[in-house]
Amino acid sequence: MVDVAAKERKILVAVDESEESSYALSWCIENIITGNSNDTLILLYSIPPRAVYSTLDGTGYLFSSDILATMERYSSEVAQCVMEKAKRACEALNGVKVETIVEHGDARDVICQAAGKLHVDMLVMGSHGYGVIKRAFLGSVSNHCAQNVKCPVLIVKKPKTDGRSK
Amino acid sequence: MVDVAAKERKILVAVDESEESSYALSWCIENIITGNSNDTLILLYSIPPRAVYSTLDGTGYLFSSDILATMERYSSEVAQCVMEKAKRACEALNGVKVETIVEHGDARDVICQAAGKLHVDMLVMGSHGYGVIKRAFLGSVSNHCAQNVKCPVLIVKKPKTDGRSK
Repeated sequence: MVDVAAKERKILVAVDESEESSYALSWCIENIITGNSNDTLILLYSIPPRAVYSTLDGTGYLFSSDILATMERYSSEVAQCVMEKAKRACEALNGVKVETIVEHGDARDVICQAAGKLHVDMLVMGSHGYGVIKRAFLGSVSNHCAQNVKCPVLIVKKPKTDGRSK
Repeated sequence: MVDVAAKERKILVAVDESEESSYALSWCIENIITGNSNDTLILLYSIPPRAVYSTLDGTGYLFSSDILATMERYSSEVAQCVMEKAKRACEALNGVKVETIVEHGDARDVICQAAGKLHVDMLVMGSHGYGVIKRAFLGSVSNHCAQNVKCPVLIVKKPKTDGRSK
């Protein structure tokens, strides 16, 4: 028998405000983190950089600094809210250390850099998510990370609930 | 505490003759399959279709049927050898059911179809592998599967052993 309880693993979970991300965290808790393990669960949220907002304005004008400041404040509030929710999802895991990290930057870079710097044993992420806006501009975050992160990457998809799944 | 012991999970592991694939299976056994679980581990190997061999001949001529028959026989022997090795790696998992499937076809299609048909809870695969020849012609199998399979996909990379990993 393999004794996972004896191992100390660092598991990085990329979280954001999407349902996919929330499902990925729950799935990870239920399927990867075992009750007796010495795992450390690191929840990572990336706040998108200003440049991403700026590209939103299709008129050729940049947003005013007031609007940018409001957006930045809103981003921080979203980050806090997402982290609180994620931490609540981890509450059942009494034996597991939970750490949180909020970083500014493109999700793809933030996640890949964190995985490398923290020497995590595994990266868990939803297959989509990481913001509709960013996805449209920058392509799939999970694809990028799966190709660039050195550790095992678990991509969790939220099952479709409309009955069309085959 | 989350009780993974009570769950019955089907975990599909795509195996091939590469070291990456062998490492992915070992990693899965050590990190995902817990000793007490009711998991069923399904080892899947895909034998490449003839079409892939045929494209090998750059002279414009197709291989003779003799050569194709030899290649086919060789493929079956490789499949058997890989499966034996994979099953030996699973021997420590006394409580876990191990099943093996060998299918003919493009690895991408075989893996995606099997994951759907068998309603597996998770797909595990190496990040590269699945044959140098096929990879060169068809692109990354793991990328394709991560995008097309509906269940969570774990992509395991073999750490570099040359000390250059950062």
